[in-house]
Amino acid sequence: MGFLHEGHLSLMRVGRKVADTLVASIFVNPAQFGPGEDFDTYPRDLERDLQLLNQEGVDIVFTPDKSQLYPDNYQTYIKLDHLPHHLCGISRPVFFTGVATVVAKLFNIVKPHFVVFGEKDYQQLLIIRRMVQDLNMDIEIIGAPIVREADGLAMSSRNNYLTPEQRPAARTLYQSLTRATELVKNGVRDATRIIAEAQKIISAYSDAEIDYLAVCDPETLDNVQKIDNPALMALAVKIGGTRLIDNTILDPNR
Amino acid sequence: MGFLHEGHLSLMRVGRKVADTLVASIFVNPAQFGPGEDFDTYPRDLERDLQLLNQEGVDIVFTPDKSQLYPDNYQTYIKLDHLPHHLCGISRPVFFTGVATVVAKLFNIVKPHFVVFGEKDYQQLLIIRRMVQDLNMDIEIIGAPIVREADGLAMSSRNNYLTPEQRPAARTLYQSLTRATELVKNGVRDATRIIAEAQKIISAYSDAEIDYLAVCDPETLDNVQKIDNPALMALAVKIGGTRLIDNTILDPNR
Repeated sequence: MGFLHEGHLSLMRVGRKVADTLVASIFVNPAQFGPGEDFDTYPRDLERDLQLLNQEGVDIVFTPDKSQLYPDNYQTYIKLDHLPHHLCGISRPVFFTGVATVVAKLFNIVKPHFVVFGEKDYQQLLIIRRMVQDLNMDIEIIGAPIVREADGLAMSSRNNYLTPEQRPAARTLYQSLTRATELVKNGVRDATRIIAEAQKIISAYSDAEIDYLAVCDPETLDNVQKIDNPALMALAVKIGGTRLIDNTILDPNR
Repeated sequence: MGFLHEGHLSLMRVGRKVADTLVASIFVNPAQFGPGEDFDTYPRDLERDLQLLNQEGVDIVFTPDKSQLYPDNYQTYIKLDHLPHHLCGISRPVFFTGVATVVAKLFNIVKPHFVVFGEKDYQQLLIIRRMVQDLNMDIEIIGAPIVREADGLAMSSRNNYLTPEQRPAARTLYQSLTRATELVKNGVRDATRIIAEAQKIISAYSDAEIDYLAVCDPETLDNVQKIDNPALMALAVKIGGTRLIDNTILDPNR
């Protein structure tokens, strides 16, 4: 969706290693924004993006127009039965239909052999993997690790919305994940306890409003009670009007 | 879906003309049958089908297994907002989701340049065209004309279910289309009158039960009142337990 940061550029570097021709798409996809969400105000800076992509050795930048991808009479959507009804999909019911659909369109236009997605959007990555497998798309999906700011905040174009005063509250997403990792390392297996600790860390800031905070199966996204196998801890928190997400894998064997 | 008849074989002949390599798929797709429909009893004869396809010079026959195309945990479906809520989609609500989904899967597996579909399944053809356009699939869809038995009945694997006693009732589908064409040729433009005439022809047989009978826009499938432009006349009739469909274009300029 453009307004590139180091997280995006890390994807380009992964792509540059595996691909002969590296294509980046920049498209703020209206189909994945719900009513009242920030489609109109989503940050955009195409000139700067093109310069950054050029520096990363990207061969082709695809910047379609809204009306090219969604002409009048457009009516075809890709929907998944289960994975979207968890985590971000609960408060953003149209989001993953919009994501899956535009990604399938981009795949059909670009015809890539490999595609790189960031693990920050874990649920998105999982849904795209599932779609690719279910629809028999001959594409290899590569996940790239989360890139963080110096203070731990996961890179996101929406970080741009944060005021300096909101920054300490924004940092609690990563702080609660770090605390959870520590607890699991110390032998805690009870998801409820881990969630309660995270909740405490975040709720210390009055401008932080938790959307969800979950410990779940990394494949099905069903909630997990006891962390006997690697589990996904994922959270979404609104800081003022800015919705931030983050996640990590809690591995009891590590 | 196999159990091939002359209608299917006519598609192979069209394909044979345009393609270097001709692939046929045979798959009775569970996703397009609703509860209580004839998935289990749908006629199958793979040996005979393979022989017929061989005679038509088909290079590859793809006969996947149900569990290959729909493994456990399968959850991705392609849904259209408008076109499926007309004609056959009204009494068969899951049908076109199943069709669009399996067709997209077959496209991704076979990666065809051209695909041939029969015009007997007009709504299916229209939905596939729309899906291909909406999802930016780089595939050319070719429609092939309806092939009919000597008595006018459109070829269908389900004709096999009909008893000799049901045949006259089954013939009324084509008879009503022929009558409609004649009326339009004679200057009739009122869809209600054309539908009423067709209804009369079909209702003469007590074992014929009309599912729908429509005159509609050939692109949107919205009902048409006055036939000033070419319109689709489409109908579905149950003869005993057998659901038959047929259609024609009513062209006021012909």
